[in-house]
Amino acid sequence: MKKRLYSFCLLLFMGMSVNAQNKKPNVLLIYSDDQGSLDMNCYGAKDLKTPSFDKMAENGVRFTQFYAPAPICTPSRAALLTGKSPQGAQLPNNTSSQPGHAGLPTEEVTIAEVFKGAGYNTAHIGKWHLGYTPETMPNEQGFDHSFGHMGGCIDNYSHFFYWEGPNRHDLWRNGEEVFMDGQYFPELMVDEVDQYLTSIKEDEDPFFMYFAINLPHYPVQPLEKWRTYYKDLPSPRRDYAAFMSTLDEYIGKLLDVLEKQGVLENTIVVFQSDHGYSTEVRNFNGGGYSGPYRGAKGDLFEGGIRVPTLIQWPNKIPANQVRNGIGTGTDWFPTLLDFCGISYDQNAIEGHSLKEMILDKDAASPVEVFRWKFGASWAVREGDWKLIGYPTDHTKKAPIDFEKGSYYLVNIAQDSSELTNLAAEYPEKVEELTKKYLDWEFGFEDDLPQDFKEVQHLGFNAKVQLLQPTDKRSTGQEIKLVDGYSGTKTFSDGYWVAFLGNDMEVVLELPQKSKIKKITVGALSAQQSWIFAPKEVEVFVSEDGENYTKFGTQKAEGAIKNVIVHREKISIEGKSKAKYIKVIAKNIGKLPEWHSGNGSDAYMFIDEITIE
Amino acid sequence: MKKRLYSFCLLLFMGMSVNAQNKKPNVLLIYSDDQGSLDMNCYGAKDLKTPSFDKMAENGVRFTQFYAPAPICTPSRAALLTGKSPQGAQLPNNTSSQPGHAGLPTEEVTIAEVFKGAGYNTAHIGKWHLGYTPETMPNEQGFDHSFGHMGGCIDNYSHFFYWEGPNRHDLWRNGEEVFMDGQYFPELMVDEVDQYLTSIKEDEDPFFMYFAINLPHYPVQPLEKWRTYYKDLPSPRRDYAAFMSTLDEYIGKLLDVLEKQGVLENTIVVFQSDHGYSTEVRNFNGGGYSGPYRGAKGDLFEGGIRVPTLIQWPNKIPANQVRNGIGTGTDWFPTLLDFCGISYDQNAIEGHSLKEMILDKDAASPVEVFRWKFGASWAVREGDWKLIGYPTDHTKKAPIDFEKGSYYLVNIAQDSSELTNLAAEYPEKVEELTKKYLDWEFGFEDDLPQDFKEVQHLGFNAKVQLLQPTDKRSTGQEIKLVDGYSGTKTFSDGYWVAFLGNDMEVVLELPQKSKIKKITVGALSAQQSWIFAPKEVEVFVSEDGENYTKFGTQKAEGAIKNVIVHREKISIEGKSKAKYIKVIAKNIGKLPEWHSGNGSDAYMFIDEITIE
Repeated sequence: MKKRLYSFCLLLFMGMSVNAQNKKPNVLLIYSDDQGSLDMNCYGAKDLKTPSFDKMAENGVRFTQFYAPAPICTPSRAALLTGKSPQGAQLPNNTSSQPGHAGLPTEEVTIAEVFKGAGYNTAHIGKWHLGYTPETMPNEQGFDHSFGHMGGCIDNYSHFFYWEGPNRHDLWRNGEEVFMDGQYFPELMVDEVDQYLTSIKEDEDPFFMYFAINLPHYPVQPLEKWRTYYKDLPSPRRDYAAFMSTLDEYIGKLLDVLEKQGVLENTIVVFQSDHGYSTEVRNFNGGGYSGPYRGAKGDLFEGGIRVPTLIQWPNKIPANQVRNGIGTGTDWFPTLLDFCGISYDQNAIEGHSLKEMILDKDAASPVEVFRWKFGASWAVREGDWKLIGYPTDHTKKAPIDFEKGSYYLVNIAQDSSELTNLAAEYPEKVEELTKKYLDWEFGFEDDLPQDFKEVQHLGFNAKVQLLQPTDKRSTGQEIKLVDGYSGTKTFSDGYWVAFLGNDMEVVLELPQKSKIKKITVGALSAQQSWIFAPKEVEVFVSEDGENYTKFGTQKAEGAIKNVIVHREKISIEGKSKAKYIKVIAKNIGKLPEWHSGNGSDAYMFIDEITIE
Repeated sequence: MKKRLYSFCLLLFMGMSVNAQNKKPNVLLIYSDDQGSLDMNCYGAKDLKTPSFDKMAENGVRFTQFYAPAPICTPSRAALLTGKSPQGAQLPNNTSSQPGHAGLPTEEVTIAEVFKGAGYNTAHIGKWHLGYTPETMPNEQGFDHSFGHMGGCIDNYSHFFYWEGPNRHDLWRNGEEVFMDGQYFPELMVDEVDQYLTSIKEDEDPFFMYFAINLPHYPVQPLEKWRTYYKDLPSPRRDYAAFMSTLDEYIGKLLDVLEKQGVLENTIVVFQSDHGYSTEVRNFNGGGYSGPYRGAKGDLFEGGIRVPTLIQWPNKIPANQVRNGIGTGTDWFPTLLDFCGISYDQNAIEGHSLKEMILDKDAASPVEVFRWKFGASWAVREGDWKLIGYPTDHTKKAPIDFEKGSYYLVNIAQDSSELTNLAAEYPEKVEELTKKYLDWEFGFEDDLPQDFKEVQHLGFNAKVQLLQPTDKRSTGQEIKLVDGYSGTKTFSDGYWVAFLGNDMEVVLELPQKSKIKKITVGALSAQQSWIFAPKEVEVFVSEDGENYTKFGTQKAEGAIKNVIVHREKISIEGKSKAKYIKVIAKNIGKLPEWHSGNGSDAYMFIDEITIE
């Protein structure tokens, strides 16, 4: 009853029309975790056995240029479920895996809410990682039924979370903690699907199921049969490959359950990975396969975002076909609603329906331009061209030279390995794609790489005396505070001066006594990297270096929540004559309560101190 | 055959005599993990249900003043197995849980080697944490049979180690990795005992079994029945109590297996915890029970080292008796050999046989003096008196004032809570017990707390200029390098100046030009706390502060392995006149390969720079 009422309200709100008389198709949306770009036999991984995936590819459509909306878990999932960019969904970073931390804002409309509004039974099975408060857990985000873990990963047998805070249990069914000690989580997921489908068997409404399987994310815990099968491969591929075949086996079991329940025929099944494979030490520094692509989890090179993607719907979607057109995780929202004949407000989302392209091999992709933004990195793909601002590469396939500018331009059709930066060769293309980025609601001038142009000012190359230490990463580099170059949005560019836990307190000695009108302090916010803007800047001036008078104070951004990567300029105006200028930038101290690193020392990154 | 040959050689070496004709008793030595001092019903924990432990206490002898030889895992276990102090066993710190790291030196003789030499079947079941190289794993340390994990802890269902490096599997039988995915480890341990006893049933020789159960160490993973039983207790006691009852249940199952196998009657069963409960965040910051005692895992107050201890041997050892005399983990080596009629070289060990005290309630403890040494802390117990040097208290029951001197004296009979420091009131007792400490092979003058006496020297209160930064814990404290007070063995005493990863490079400006004959740099080694002595000290002198000449260089200790807590004075002699003295102490940089923090920045702690 509650579902119907909710449905009715949402229909009114979204202005949709539903004909509940016709039985609509079911939807099974499978999202895997940290799977390499080409980690399937049908994608070219020659050392893998993945019969279930290969069968899906035979039974449906396989994409060669499908993109994750983000190179890490939470934002990729937020985008999938909202049909928006992670920025649009207000969740551009990983959310905490600790209980009590919110995630996807409740005002965001999830695909589950829309399907539910259209009369569907909705279920979440598996990983969540989109909020760990009652109002951001699955049952309050559109799912009638939910079974799985709320944090980023679990031990597959004890269902414990080990990677932050206390070692603790994390397995839930509909908001209630459930203990299933010792039982293999992928098996539990498939069993849950079976039981759930049985429970709604008599229901005349179809189902929408989000099956977020936590494989092959660490901890790498494959079935014994696959461990044995791959035992002769070198580590870390050995364990990862075994985990991939374990994943494949459970995808097979899942589809078998649908078949047994008699619903496979009328179910649209989508499979996608959330992003590329991980190079974390927890994962033995790798093991995934991305063939020629550079980059991995966390990067905007192809290895971080190009993901294996399949769709099948017997007799409705072509079998054994390949699509080379671009698709993205934000597109499933409109695509699936389209296939199910449920209307939606295109203006409220950023994705595009891929229905036509899936059905017709000659249809072009509706995705003309796609943009990513993650940390300080951003990227634009249009046609065969791709521009990255501030690229990162966890696979370290080639060095990245920030001094030469941080625009990285490639033609994907000619160089899918992205080893050659064409930015210098095609400046108009850089400009054109930069403009496309800035046209986007979440693309800002401030995000653009800088020219590293020297700016002269009164304090240029002043003598710098530190009264409080820098972080060791900036040892001996305090002169950079006044070297005429400002730090970029990449904290590791070598221009920032870092302070860990403590304030910056410096005295600048000018070459001669000068009239001072304005003092500006540049600061960086990159909260995911534990970098916070100062909470206040205070300036004192002196003619003799001994007797100081106050020049001014300015409150600053500090620990405001969810400021992503942002450069700030904190200015204080006044009128004074001075040779010595004492600048104090106050560190927020400890990371705030809501931050995943809560209680640790905060970094403060400062550059440049400009004196006019 | 191999066992017999080995036995023969060891007998020759140790000069023992064994009468293999008489069937000797079996030995089951149970060591629990992170169990609170009073965490049994029979010890006074009113909220616990521990019927198996209570039954053991009824069937045998319960100790009220039994001590762990160390307040953390590895050294406590090394002492148990060698009958020596951890220092005597050359393993005073936790060893790494990563494969490839050695532990207990092979030249140490374990109790298993002696029992094996006396013709016993020897078995290790459970946790090891005494070395993870082929030559330091159980089968090479005297155990015919071994089953368990090599690191410090595991997930009880996946048998994965999560707390350092890659997330990886850690379950072994006789040096071969075995996978038993999803099976509860305590259950596997008991099953292994059953199978092992069956396998040696036809053997005429008795067995010695070390059953090192990994409970109630984190991760806290109790059986569901106990989770339910304690559900109304507050956290973290709730989970910990459930884990305690789970431990109790498996001790019961273990003894049932012995009974079923018909060997319980002729088996000496010893139970002891390795040390007090943990206050680590992994463990929800606590949960264990130590009643009135202060301190926990890591501390030399009673809560860290006084442990529940039981022994039973039907019809041979008195039933339902309590012993208030002191006993320690090092005493099981001689005690058990004594009970089994196997001779040993008392001079080669530090423990004492408790046989007489166990059999006769009126016999005094043979332990007249017992000493501990852990990190910078050390302690001596003699009679009712206990003296601690540099105490720590993870339970934070009361502050510790290092400025007043770091000797902490208590009379345990009158104040088992150790809340009142009697050191100032009984200086002779402090002196007497300090002497007892220094009488010990591993007690050094250098370990003694200092008077914080100001020492005048030429550099006293010189102007200090830092050319490389201190660690932030020493921000603005560089003047302490020449304040006339030297740092103690407690790195957190407030006197040391810390450098993280980088060298110390300072210029001391003396009040006037002086004749310099000797420059001495004090340094600390506390490798467990990631603090290493410098690898070299270099000194330059100058009259004008601009033109420097070399005064001298001295190589220093640096990253020598297993230097525990140690203060070093690095002196350079010469002859010069100077007003400015530049002192460079070279940090080892990164923690060395053998260290558990391998690859991280090393701390270097300096104080005092004395100029004569």
